[in-house]
Amino acid sequence: MRWVSSRAAIIVTGTEVLTGRVADRNSPWLAEQLRLLGVDIGQVIVVGDRRADLDAALAFLATSGLELIITTGGLGPTADDLTAEAVAAFQGRELELDEQLETRIAAIVERLSAGRGWTTDPVATAHAVRKQAYVPIGARVLEPVGTAPGLVVPPGDGCGGPVVVVLPGPPAELQQMWPAAVTDPLVVAAVPDREELRQGTVRLWGTPESELAAVLRGHGGDLSHLEITTCLRDGELEIVTRYHPGAERAYRELVSTIETSFAGSAFSLHGQTVDDIVAESLCSQGLTIATGESCTGGALADRLTRPSGASRFMLGGVVAYSNKSKADLLGVPTDLLDRHGAVSPEVAEAMAAGVRDRFGASVGVGITGVAGPGGGTEAKPVGLVQLCVASPATTLRRQVQVPGDRVDVRIRSVAVAMHMVRQAIARR
Amino acid sequence: MRWVSSRAAIIVTGTEVLTGRVADRNSPWLAEQLRLLGVDIGQVIVVGDRRADLDAALAFLATSGLELIITTGGLGPTADDLTAEAVAAFQGRELELDEQLETRIAAIVERLSAGRGWTTDPVATAHAVRKQAYVPIGARVLEPVGTAPGLVVPPGDGCGGPVVVVLPGPPAELQQMWPAAVTDPLVVAAVPDREELRQGTVRLWGTPESELAAVLRGHGGDLSHLEITTCLRDGELEIVTRYHPGAERAYRELVSTIETSFAGSAFSLHGQTVDDIVAESLCSQGLTIATGESCTGGALADRLTRPSGASRFMLGGVVAYSNKSKADLLGVPTDLLDRHGAVSPEVAEAMAAGVRDRFGASVGVGITGVAGPGGGTEAKPVGLVQLCVASPATTLRRQVQVPGDRVDVRIRSVAVAMHMVRQAIARR
Repeated sequence: MRWVSSRAAIIVTGTEVLTGRVADRNSPWLAEQLRLLGVDIGQVIVVGDRRADLDAALAFLATSGLELIITTGGLGPTADDLTAEAVAAFQGRELELDEQLETRIAAIVERLSAGRGWTTDPVATAHAVRKQAYVPIGARVLEPVGTAPGLVVPPGDGCGGPVVVVLPGPPAELQQMWPAAVTDPLVVAAVPDREELRQGTVRLWGTPESELAAVLRGHGGDLSHLEITTCLRDGELEIVTRYHPGAERAYRELVSTIETSFAGSAFSLHGQTVDDIVAESLCSQGLTIATGESCTGGALADRLTRPSGASRFMLGGVVAYSNKSKADLLGVPTDLLDRHGAVSPEVAEAMAAGVRDRFGASVGVGITGVAGPGGGTEAKPVGLVQLCVASPATTLRRQVQVPGDRVDVRIRSVAVAMHMVRQAIARR
Repeated sequence: MRWVSSRAAIIVTGTEVLTGRVADRNSPWLAEQLRLLGVDIGQVIVVGDRRADLDAALAFLATSGLELIITTGGLGPTADDLTAEAVAAFQGRELELDEQLETRIAAIVERLSAGRGWTTDPVATAHAVRKQAYVPIGARVLEPVGTAPGLVVPPGDGCGGPVVVVLPGPPAELQQMWPAAVTDPLVVAAVPDREELRQGTVRLWGTPESELAAVLRGHGGDLSHLEITTCLRDGELEIVTRYHPGAERAYRELVSTIETSFAGSAFSLHGQTVDDIVAESLCSQGLTIATGESCTGGALADRLTRPSGASRFMLGGVVAYSNKSKADLLGVPTDLLDRHGAVSPEVAEAMAAGVRDRFGASVGVGITGVAGPGGGTEAKPVGLVQLCVASPATTLRRQVQVPGDRVDVRIRSVAVAMHMVRQAIARR
C-alpha cells in the first residue's frame, strides 16, 4: 500500500540534451522541488527538437493519469524552438500574439544587449522578440526572467487532463521562474495534495551492496511504506528512502538497523555528504586545510572550495603537475623523487607535509598517481594512486588501484582523499 | 524530406537518476554510439525503480515504430533491480535460472571481493548471484563485465516489435559490454541500416543567438536536409547539425556562411572545443602554462589537466584562496593587495606574472573574483571577476560581471579564462 500523491512528469526538450552534448540540469532540480511539494515524479522524457517526438511524449503522458506536466526548453527565438506551439496544440488551444508581452520582451532584449555591449540587427531582434510573444489563448504568462516567458496551459474545453507548465531551458531562468509557476492558481488547483514526501539518505563508505541487501532482508521492521533505493558511486553506497510522514517511525527503525549493522562504514545517517562533514568538521575545530595535487590536477581543491564559506577553512593548494614544481613549490626533496619516483608513498607524504608547511595549514593533503592513459609501468600501472593526509592528530597513508579510465582515476582519487580527510579530523 | 534511419530509444532506470541524485552518464554515451551506427535516437525516458512505470515506458515505445530499445540499470542484486523481469514480460518470455551463468557470476564475485579485501556473508552473496543469473528464455546473454550480465531480448512468438538490449547501469560496465551488444546477430538484424549519421559542430564565442537565427534565415543554401540545433552555454553558442552523407555539400555551404558572417567569433568550425584548441596550440608551439586561481579554486587547473597528455604543456598551478597565500606562493606584493584589494586588475595581473615566474611557464593565468554568496560590496559585487593572461606575445586583461550563483560564477570565469588563453596564444 502507498499513500496517494499527486503525480507529475517532466519533458525535457532539446536535441543537444537528447544527443548528450548538454547535461540536463533542470529535471534533477525540478524533481527535488516537486518532492518538497509532495508531488511524486513518474518519469522524465527527453526528446529532440522535433515536433512529432514532442507530440508523442505529450500524448503518452496524457494517458498516465498525471495531474501536471512540466516542459523545459524550446522557448528560444530560433525555428527549432517549438514547445509553445506543441503544448498549445496538445491542450486544444490556438496561439495568439500578446502585444503587451512583445513590448516587455523587446525592452528586456534591449537592456541585455546594451549590458553586453552587443550590436544587434534590429530586424533580427524584432523577429526573435515577436516569436517569443505568441501565447496559447487561455494560458497564463509567467514573466520572462531571460527573454522567454513561461506559460501555464490548462486543458482546453473538453480536453480533460493535466495542466502543462512550460518553462525555459536555461537553469537560472527556470529556477527564478519556478516560484511564480508553483503559486499560479491553475497549478495549485492541479496538485492540491501538499503533504511533503520525505526523503532520507544514509551513506556508507566501503560496504558492498550485497551486504546491505542481506541486512535489509533480515531487518525485522516494516519496510512496506518505505521506498528504498540504493546506489553505489565513487565507492560510496547511498541509500535513499522516500516516504510519507506517517512512516517516519518505520524509517527511523531502518536507520537504526543500518547504523548498528555498519558501525564502521555508515559515515552519514542524515543526508550529509562527505563534503558537508569535512567542511563542518574543519570549521567547528578551527582547522585549515591545503592541498598538494599531481594526478588530480586541482580537482580536490576545486571540490573543497565549492561550498560557500570555504574561505573559512580552505587556504589553497598547489597543483604540482611537473616534477620540478613538486620540488620548487612543495619542497619535495629531489633525491626522494629520484629514488622512489613521483608516484610513491614517500612523495605523497612529502607533498602533504610540504603544502601544509607552505600554507601554514592544520591539514595537508598529498596526491600523486598515474591517471593514464599513458605513463603506466608494470610496477606502477595506470590507476595506481598514492595519498597522504597529515593532520595535527595523525598521518594517514593510502595506496589505491583505481579501475577505469583517466576520468575515473581522477574522480575516485578525490573521493578517497575526501574520506581520508574526514577520518583524519574525526573527533574520537 | 529526411533520409530514413533505424530508430532507437533508451530507457534509463533508477530512482536515483529520476530524482536527480545521480547524473545519467549512459544515455549521452549511447546516443553518440548509435549515431555512429546511423541509428537515430528518438527519446530517452528516465523512470524510477517501479515496475509499473517501467512497464508503461516499454509499452509506449512499442507503439513508436522503433527497431531497438536499450535499457540501462536495474540489474543489481537488490529487490529494486527489476529490469530483467520487466523486459521478459514485455517480450512475452519467462525467466529461467541459467546455472552455468550463475557459476560464472559466483567466480567473478569471489575474485572482486578478494581483490577489495571484503569479507562477505556467503548466504547473502549466493542470493545476490542467483538473482542476477535469471535470464528470459530465448534471450542472449552478454557476459558480465562487473557482476551483472547484459541481455539481448527479442520479441517472443507473436509479439512483433523492437529488440530490447538490457545493459547494466555503471558506465564503465555498460561501455565495455557495448561491443558485444552491438555485434550480436539479433541487434545487427534489427538495425541493418548502418549508414553513419554525420554530425558537425561549429562554435562561436560572444555572438547572440538572435544574430545566428538571422544569418540562418538569410542563408541562400538548402537547409532542408540538415537538422540544425543551437545551444548557448557558458557564453559559447554551439551549432550542431546532423545529416546523412548525401547532404555533405549543403552542410559545407552552411559552415562557409557562418565562417564569413562571424569571422571574429567563430573559433571552431570542425568540432574542436576550446580545450582542444588550447591544448593543440600550446603543444604545437612548445609553450607551457601555469595557473594562479582564487575564486575558481582550482577549476581552471582541473580543466587544463583533463586531456590525456596534459603534462606536455601544463606545469601546474597555485590555488591562492587566502590573501596570505597570494603573497607567499605567488609573490603578489602585499601593498598591492592593501591598496587595490584582492579582487582587482592589478592583483590578477600580479597573480598571472607570479605563477608564470614560479613555474617557469610560457603562459601565466591569474583569476580573482567574488564568487559569492557572501563577500560582495557595492563597488565589488558578487560575480565580479578580474582575469589576466600573460603570454610571451601579449598580456590580456579582462573584467567580467557574471550573473547567477556561486557555481555559475566559477564555471563562467573558467570559460572566459580558456578563451583568453586561446586568444593570447593564437597564431596571427
